[in-house]
Amino acid sequence: MTGPRVASTRAALLDLLADARGKGDRVGLVPTMGALHDGHAALMARAREQIGDGPLVVSVFVNPTQFGKGEDLDRYPRTLDADLEVCARRGVDVVFAPSVDEVYPDGVGADWAEQSVTVDPGPLATVLEGQVRPGHFRGVLTVVAKLFALVRPDVAVFGEKDYQQLALIRRMSRDLCLGVEVVGAETVREPDGLAMSSRNRFLDREQRMRAAALPRSLERARANADQGARAALAAARAELRQAHGVDLDYLVITLPDLSDLPPRTPAGTEARILIAARVGSTRLIDNLPLTLGAVDKGDS
Amino acid sequence: MTGPRVASTRAALLDLLADARGKGDRVGLVPTMGALHDGHAALMARAREQIGDGPLVVSVFVNPTQFGKGEDLDRYPRTLDADLEVCARRGVDVVFAPSVDEVYPDGVGADWAEQSVTVDPGPLATVLEGQVRPGHFRGVLTVVAKLFALVRPDVAVFGEKDYQQLALIRRMSRDLCLGVEVVGAETVREPDGLAMSSRNRFLDREQRMRAAALPRSLERARANADQGARAALAAARAELRQAHGVDLDYLVITLPDLSDLPPRTPAGTEARILIAARVGSTRLIDNLPLTLGAVDKGDS
Repeated sequence: MTGPRVASTRAALLDLLADARGKGDRVGLVPTMGALHDGHAALMARAREQIGDGPLVVSVFVNPTQFGKGEDLDRYPRTLDADLEVCARRGVDVVFAPSVDEVYPDGVGADWAEQSVTVDPGPLATVLEGQVRPGHFRGVLTVVAKLFALVRPDVAVFGEKDYQQLALIRRMSRDLCLGVEVVGAETVREPDGLAMSSRNRFLDREQRMRAAALPRSLERARANADQGARAALAAARAELRQAHGVDLDYLVITLPDLSDLPPRTPAGTEARILIAARVGSTRLIDNLPLTLGAVDKGDS
Repeated sequence: MTGPRVASTRAALLDLLADARGKGDRVGLVPTMGALHDGHAALMARAREQIGDGPLVVSVFVNPTQFGKGEDLDRYPRTLDADLEVCARRGVDVVFAPSVDEVYPDGVGADWAEQSVTVDPGPLATVLEGQVRPGHFRGVLTVVAKLFALVRPDVAVFGEKDYQQLALIRRMSRDLCLGVEVVGAETVREPDGLAMSSRNRFLDREQRMRAAALPRSLERARANADQGARAALAAARAELRQAHGVDLDYLVITLPDLSDLPPRTPAGTEARILIAARVGSTRLIDNLPLTLGAVDKGDS
């Protein structure tokens, strides 16, 4: 097993990818903030499906501009050696681990977004996660645009777990003509259904059990989706009412591309249900695809 | 003389550039809105210097999102056949003339910037030209980001005539890690010094004569720059006072990258003087580089 090559600058990355590009191979990118777990491994596998023998690049960069005040940028785990081992086991060809200076040549002070040219995510960034995390999606889209410009991938894979982020990145690639195929990878779950997340480690034993109410409620919605969006939401809410210590933030059914937000009952049959809730002081999110029946379409 | 190849889609453009990219040739881009004149020819020559035998791409696209209300998008001249002849004479290899749908897949309604992911130019877009043309630089940077993503040039050439635009595009390429070398080409002038511009045709004979006061005032500033910024500005203003029918909008001396705007007397010796004025109903802009003497540096 040979490990991945590591690049920390644009120039080094260009060198490592030059041969593959010359041959016309497809380049795949999985952007991460490190602290890699099984969820990331699934992203890497999904990328490999897309690019065949082309080079698979994993970026490891803890992006300061997507952390809000009190969101623990400094305590975010940095585990590059362990990450490189995960990448080696998963057949990653190149790890791109740039410095903050490489990605933000002018630095990242508190007034960063007022001092630089940035990517404006538009209205989809002001609802759901954007409502509780102002500026978050501007930071995410700006750093993803930079990573796309640095790596120039043909395909990039993001987890469906962060569904609004995925929808926004798809939107960005289309709206800015970036030409990157943005692929969503299905959420990897624990045996009781809880979506894998680096935040799960903040849950104590009892909270961890309660947290399974999130995926359970989404499954209940899915089981009732043939009766329409209103019935699906009611079933999910009934499930959540039985769970103590789960403080619901939002529960919505929207179009798969979130283009109808702020949410209303979608007009189509293909839809997405999204949930956010606090368990103790930990905020969790999850989502599932739904196929809605025609019963109450558009009338709620 | 063989004419340039013409592409109107990303796919066609990729095809035309594939061989050159495979060989590692440098790709040059001159973005234009068509209606090509001698000023554009100078941009093409400057690009050719940068790329040697690599492919020179000229984009011809009248960008709807940089026109404000009443700014005559519909009356902007479209002269593709004549433009192709200019390109053929200047050794252009590829003309990229996309449709509005190719560049804006979601259309460009009046609320365009509120419905899409866009490039936010930041504070430098709110002063000088940005103050009289709200939204203009968001439209410019967004379309240039798209053209960079579509063409993927190594070098792009813009005229120094639109100096604030040039500074913002330089800033964007650095801030978003686009990796495009942004080169400014010196302004091409009429015999009396007036900067070439498609707007000059709106001047009647008398206005056309008066308009030469703009470059004359800049030259006066330059001639007095060794006495410092204050003296340079005073000299330019004295020149303008002698010109009737020239309605000054702004006259400022700033750092060459405009990073000290809103403008104050620059601390360095290398500086730029920028002017905007109305002659009749036509708004003209111009600028020159200055080397300031130390006399009043920083004290005004």
